[in-house]
Amino acid sequence: MSMAMTDNEITLAIIQTLKEGKKQTFQELMDELQPYDMACQYKEIPHKHRNKFLIYLSLEHLTEMMQELDKEEQLDVLGKLGIEKSTQVLDLMENDNLASLLADLDQEQIDDLTSEMNREESKVVQNLIKYPKETAGRIMNNRYVWIPKHYTVREAVDKIKHFAELAEYLNYLYVIDEEKKLAGVVSYKDLILAELHDKIEDIMYSRVVKSDVHTDQEEVAKLISRYDFVSLPIVTADDTLVGVITVDDVIDVVIQEANEDIEKLSASGKAIDFNTKPWVAAYRRLPWLILLLFIGLISGGIISGFEDTLETVVALAYFMPMIAGMTGNTGTQSLAVVVRGLVSDDLDMKRVIKLVLRELWVGLIIGVTCGLLISNIAYFWQGSFTLGIVVGSSLFLTLIIGTLAGTIIPLILYKLNIDPAVASGPLITTINDIFSLLIYFGLASMFISKLM
Amino acid sequence: MSMAMTDNEITLAIIQTLKEGKKQTFQELMDELQPYDMACQYKEIPHKHRNKFLIYLSLEHLTEMMQELDKEEQLDVLGKLGIEKSTQVLDLMENDNLASLLADLDQEQIDDLTSEMNREESKVVQNLIKYPKETAGRIMNNRYVWIPKHYTVREAVDKIKHFAELAEYLNYLYVIDEEKKLAGVVSYKDLILAELHDKIEDIMYSRVVKSDVHTDQEEVAKLISRYDFVSLPIVTADDTLVGVITVDDVIDVVIQEANEDIEKLSASGKAIDFNTKPWVAAYRRLPWLILLLFIGLISGGIISGFEDTLETVVALAYFMPMIAGMTGNTGTQSLAVVVRGLVSDDLDMKRVIKLVLRELWVGLIIGVTCGLLISNIAYFWQGSFTLGIVVGSSLFLTLIIGTLAGTIIPLILYKLNIDPAVASGPLITTINDIFSLLIYFGLASMFISKLM
Repeated sequence: MSMAMTDNEITLAIIQTLKEGKKQTFQELMDELQPYDMACQYKEIPHKHRNKFLIYLSLEHLTEMMQELDKEEQLDVLGKLGIEKSTQVLDLMENDNLASLLADLDQEQIDDLTSEMNREESKVVQNLIKYPKETAGRIMNNRYVWIPKHYTVREAVDKIKHFAELAEYLNYLYVIDEEKKLAGVVSYKDLILAELHDKIEDIMYSRVVKSDVHTDQEEVAKLISRYDFVSLPIVTADDTLVGVITVDDVIDVVIQEANEDIEKLSASGKAIDFNTKPWVAAYRRLPWLILLLFIGLISGGIISGFEDTLETVVALAYFMPMIAGMTGNTGTQSLAVVVRGLVSDDLDMKRVIKLVLRELWVGLIIGVTCGLLISNIAYFWQGSFTLGIVVGSSLFLTLIIGTLAGTIIPLILYKLNIDPAVASGPLITTINDIFSLLIYFGLASMFISKLM
Repeated sequence: MSMAMTDNEITLAIIQTLKEGKKQTFQELMDELQPYDMACQYKEIPHKHRNKFLIYLSLEHLTEMMQELDKEEQLDVLGKLGIEKSTQVLDLMENDNLASLLADLDQEQIDDLTSEMNREESKVVQNLIKYPKETAGRIMNNRYVWIPKHYTVREAVDKIKHFAELAEYLNYLYVIDEEKKLAGVVSYKDLILAELHDKIEDIMYSRVVKSDVHTDQEEVAKLISRYDFVSLPIVTADDTLVGVITVDDVIDVVIQEANEDIEKLSASGKAIDFNTKPWVAAYRRLPWLILLLFIGLISGGIISGFEDTLETVVALAYFMPMIAGMTGNTGTQSLAVVVRGLVSDDLDMKRVIKLVLRELWVGLIIGVTCGLLISNIAYFWQGSFTLGIVVGSSLFLTLIIGTLAGTIIPLILYKLNIDPAVASGPLITTINDIFSLLIYFGLASMFISKLM
């Protein structure tokens, strides 16, 4: 295949080979494609050619391509393959990918799919599914090479050669002791630079950075990105090596966690992407919107409580959206800083106090600036000095409260082991709405005689 | 050092060795630490011990630790080291890290720092700085191994052994032709599985996935995470290999881009983390808040235009925050879906149309649901059937408009090559505020006789 072929030209060539039944040309085309591109091509060609595409594809390519499809597409392909070939594919799949395919299926479907599989492989995968979602145990895989610590460099190199096909990355070898406990790690670079007769335990690095199977996947991502590792060993409570998490999975975790933070901060509902069906997307977004509808009604209730004040000075309504909006926004700003800060930094009491004091200062600075600005605007627009004072000092107070609420609430949630992003968005909006309206109309009612 | 030592115990041990002047024990302690941990320890110990810490540290450790510090801390350390040692460290630093240290310094400072450096190394780095921010050229490094395509496997393995210390990851070797153009790639796994006398050009993979030096770093991250690569070769327009981008840098890019999206979506201002000073944080947040203040005043202006309506039926004010809030929120939800969808998916016209139609459906579904709900609530709360109809149909209309605005505006910005997150947050809020108030008070004014 010419290196210069565009994706479209490749699609046409693939359809051509399928039509003409040229299996070998088809496979040569596939040899030059990355798994992701095979999956794109498979989805690009007309439905009527897809069965033949799957039949012509070698088992290895089929397995690689499977791992690039989403769950629904995978189940569809497995159905088309028939029980025998699909079992072969499942046996070959990396077990973390297999686990994420099987998770969420009901037991009957799992049994159907795995009934003919290699028993040991199937047991490993079914064990993976038992770990809670988003933990290290759920995303780890067993495609790594381990060696006993009494090996020499020569023995280690021989073992690598033997398992090269199997290992996902060859950067590190994990070293275990007699009880199968993780004892150290050796990089491939170390092996190359050592002498063949050196003992592994003499050249290994024994202070291994590792994670427990129950660690949150976000913590694993933090470790890998902090130390620039390509993989991280995963151990059980008694230090037995049970798997590794590789950097490519960590990128997916980082993207997924960032998306979750954004979903929660923007209250946009879980896992909506370009392919989500309208009913599903609406169903996922509605709970937040209905919650916000009632939050909006609480504000309405507070306003109705100040009906007399508002009837007397209708101009007060003009500044209402601005004050509520600004307070909500400064709260969201602080919230975003805290939530994203936690992605890369750890927190101790000293830092918490420093952070809260910082935000208090920030609140004061923006409160003074915006308060003075709006006082002048309100005075010149409505010609009332008192109105200027009321609007300006309300904004000053609510900005400070909003900033602090946006900082302190997520920190408390984090301390209570609740994801700070999940509850804080709507929570902070409610609290800030209530405070800002109470302060604004409270101050206005106090000065009502001068406002008339 | 005992593997079981806690971070605090290590800190105490370090201070002890520094006090007692035991350089060798100190270096043994350091041998067992990861660069990130060295940096943490350096920042943890009292200031008075830091100079000695730097003096005792070997040049290699010093260089590794430097790369884990932030810019201010790096400049501080370089100052403490003095011109000779700091030049040695700069020579040893990976050139992408060095480039990010030098970027944003003024030319005089750059000249000061690089004056004594290895001329070639310094030139390479100064060239890197010339690439625009957030492009592949700016974050690539030269720590990779390349081989001519006429090499045999044996020659390739010899070259790797020679350059093992230099290469960041040994997963791939990049193959170049006579004109130094990128011709292929060989994985280390391929080398292990091949025969020593095989020719590289026979076993190499020639359809190389690569990026141009001017590609946006976000696109590079998309490629690496899509194909699960450990590194990606970077070429100039004529296909000359000039660097690689490694997966650990990509994780940083993914986190940085996610933070930027969140900053923009929550209008929280650029690059504020736990260590930002209050004045700086306030200064970065204020522009958005002041913008939102004026946006709030536009809403106020619209309300004041309907002063008569509002004076006649004060109850209209009760539903104002809810309608504006809901419209803003559905817009932000759609915006978040589009902005995050673009992180992993590409868009063509077909998908755009599908997406807009999907969001139209979503808008209709949530519009009908929330509209009916609020109609009933308004009717039972205020006892006015007409008010219920006005509030309900306003919400229905504004939710549809809000949803579509939140989808279409970022798509247009994306088409115009403007980052959709940057302008859309405040833009969508403004548009949605204006529409929602105009529709709400417009409808209310039409039915004013029945509302009284």
